[in-house]
Amino acid sequence: MCAGPAAELAVTLSVLAEAPDAAAAQVVPSAPVGDHRDVEAVRAFARECDVVTFDHEHVPADVLAALEADGVVMHPTPAALVFAQDKLAMRRRLTEIDVACPAWAQARTATDVEDFAAQVGWPIVAKTPRGGYDGKGVRVVSGVEELQDWLDQAALDAANGGPLAEGVLLEEKVDFTRELAVLVARSPSDQAAAWPVVETVQADGICTQVLAPAPGLDPHLAAVATEAGLRIAENLGVTGVFAVEMFEVREPETGSPAYVVNELAMRPHNSGHWSMDGAVTGQFEQHLRAVLDLPLGAPAPREPFTVMANVLGGDYPELYPAYRHLMARDPGLKIHLYGKGVRPGRKIGHVNVSGSDLDDLRERASHAADYLSGVITE
Amino acid sequence: MCAGPAAELAVTLSVLAEAPDAAAAQVVPSAPVGDHRDVEAVRAFARECDVVTFDHEHVPADVLAALEADGVVMHPTPAALVFAQDKLAMRRRLTEIDVACPAWAQARTATDVEDFAAQVGWPIVAKTPRGGYDGKGVRVVSGVEELQDWLDQAALDAANGGPLAEGVLLEEKVDFTRELAVLVARSPSDQAAAWPVVETVQADGICTQVLAPAPGLDPHLAAVATEAGLRIAENLGVTGVFAVEMFEVREPETGSPAYVVNELAMRPHNSGHWSMDGAVTGQFEQHLRAVLDLPLGAPAPREPFTVMANVLGGDYPELYPAYRHLMARDPGLKIHLYGKGVRPGRKIGHVNVSGSDLDDLRERASHAADYLSGVITE
Repeated sequence: MCAGPAAELAVTLSVLAEAPDAAAAQVVPSAPVGDHRDVEAVRAFARECDVVTFDHEHVPADVLAALEADGVVMHPTPAALVFAQDKLAMRRRLTEIDVACPAWAQARTATDVEDFAAQVGWPIVAKTPRGGYDGKGVRVVSGVEELQDWLDQAALDAANGGPLAEGVLLEEKVDFTRELAVLVARSPSDQAAAWPVVETVQADGICTQVLAPAPGLDPHLAAVATEAGLRIAENLGVTGVFAVEMFEVREPETGSPAYVVNELAMRPHNSGHWSMDGAVTGQFEQHLRAVLDLPLGAPAPREPFTVMANVLGGDYPELYPAYRHLMARDPGLKIHLYGKGVRPGRKIGHVNVSGSDLDDLRERASHAADYLSGVITE
Repeated sequence: MCAGPAAELAVTLSVLAEAPDAAAAQVVPSAPVGDHRDVEAVRAFARECDVVTFDHEHVPADVLAALEADGVVMHPTPAALVFAQDKLAMRRRLTEIDVACPAWAQARTATDVEDFAAQVGWPIVAKTPRGGYDGKGVRVVSGVEELQDWLDQAALDAANGGPLAEGVLLEEKVDFTRELAVLVARSPSDQAAAWPVVETVQADGICTQVLAPAPGLDPHLAAVATEAGLRIAENLGVTGVFAVEMFEVREPETGSPAYVVNELAMRPHNSGHWSMDGAVTGQFEQHLRAVLDLPLGAPAPREPFTVMANVLGGDYPELYPAYRHLMARDPGLKIHLYGKGVRPGRKIGHVNVSGSDLDDLRERASHAADYLSGVITE
């Protein structure tokens, strides 16, 4: 999704593709094939680049260290990326800089779990510090026995340095009103820009819609949440586009709306796809500007509301007829398909639609996403 | 400029590039090198394509005929393209379908010229029917002696089939209020969509700014001009994006605003660059939709006004420092550079800026274009 903005900015992209027919390789002039876990493949690729950036956070630490030793310019830097790769490191750091988080603890033993549950009450949320994605590596548990396998693994990993070497992250189960996201871009020169706070509508742990800006958001909360996003970016040294997923909660004493941070993502993020059509500067253009240390563009919305709906793979292996139908049905839709193979539940595209009538926009976005997924047929 | 929309639409582009470092070759994955006048090069290229389209109207008739004989799907078709290639054919056809044109005549001799001037008065406008571009092939003349060389050439070409074989096109010099353009897209299935009528601001025969929509345009004239654009597209069988350049005039009897058609362009056009950022569907996306016979997108503007300013090559062979400065000075600017070599007066890019205060937008667009051209330095 950087390909379009790169063409407009006259930036030459190259992508290390997982296969010759990878989605990105279809639209980027230079797409050598290689594995992001293969140190030599990534080093050879990086030698040809002025700046290296990432479309996910799973590049292993040894690969990042090798690039750093080679003097490769990376944005975000490995020092920042660790806070998106390691949820325990993230919780520790956010707590140090006074960003609102759920109550949390690091657990290695059943006693650690019981102690934490005694503070916050069952059920609790348990997370593997590394490797989680779209609900994977997360459990809501109502008794320590439901975590016994992770605790056993943590005991083994403590010796051999496996993924649970530091134990399990425990968090209170937050009683939230809705989910929000703050999307920020920051450049190496420390310029930063935030898009309006959005609402992310979730179903079964997967984001189905994004409403930009979050409708009816308390202006004080909008300011505080945005400030938190900018503060995190600066304190963690993030460069590029960066998303902070938040819960909207009520302050226990006053009942006022407040946020607590759920997750961080150090890359252009699903919660920012609305900006590709709905903002003066879309997140992929902004990410390129940020990692190249060009001045950032205006994040202002172009229309009162933009709704983004994710298209999940469904019953249609061949999307073309559905795509044509939707283009004809709603000429105002912006349909983005990723050129990925269709698998049930996989995000294979999204649609954006902008205007002033939020209910109308939500209906149109949902219809299009459901139609492309095969959930509805008319 | 189709590369970005093609990536979003999951359309695979291939471009026949004039050189390996051509602007388009920098952003399109497949860019074989060849000459658009070389029949065999174009045929070999076209064999690999589902649909062939054009970024200028100068592909020779014999090349188009060879592709047609090969069964290549072309949009626009050669039968339509002739009306953009041959201004005499265009005037004849528009007159047949009652589209308002300047008074015009075909001249082979000095007597033809004198007769026409006797009707409309000196000065008159003379045009070579083929090969004109950005003011080339056009003369404003106040006596027949100023056309003697073209008339001599026409006499020679009448025998040998050269570019002036049909003589010279003469037109009255229109006393216009301002210049307008209507941009239309039409698909092979005969769906058509028109963007709002724009004003094109000219200096020395080159468009410097486009104001979208044309400020203060009489609503009746807007409707009539748009209808003319759609009627031309249908009657001439145009497919793809298509521009009609017009003069705004006053009806001699009533003083009401009216149009006369100046020129046609059968391709995405400079007068439509504003739509890349300012409309729900930009002209390059719409052109791809049209030539692929996909349903067309909404041409509605996203903001009250968008101003486009052309960047002409100037004193800076290296644009990067100016580009950075402008990005920092005005985060709302959308700067599009074409990756072309800089030559004085050559269009090397454009800027778009959208909002509601037209004077402010015009100042910002002009500043950016002039700064990139080196006309101003602060």
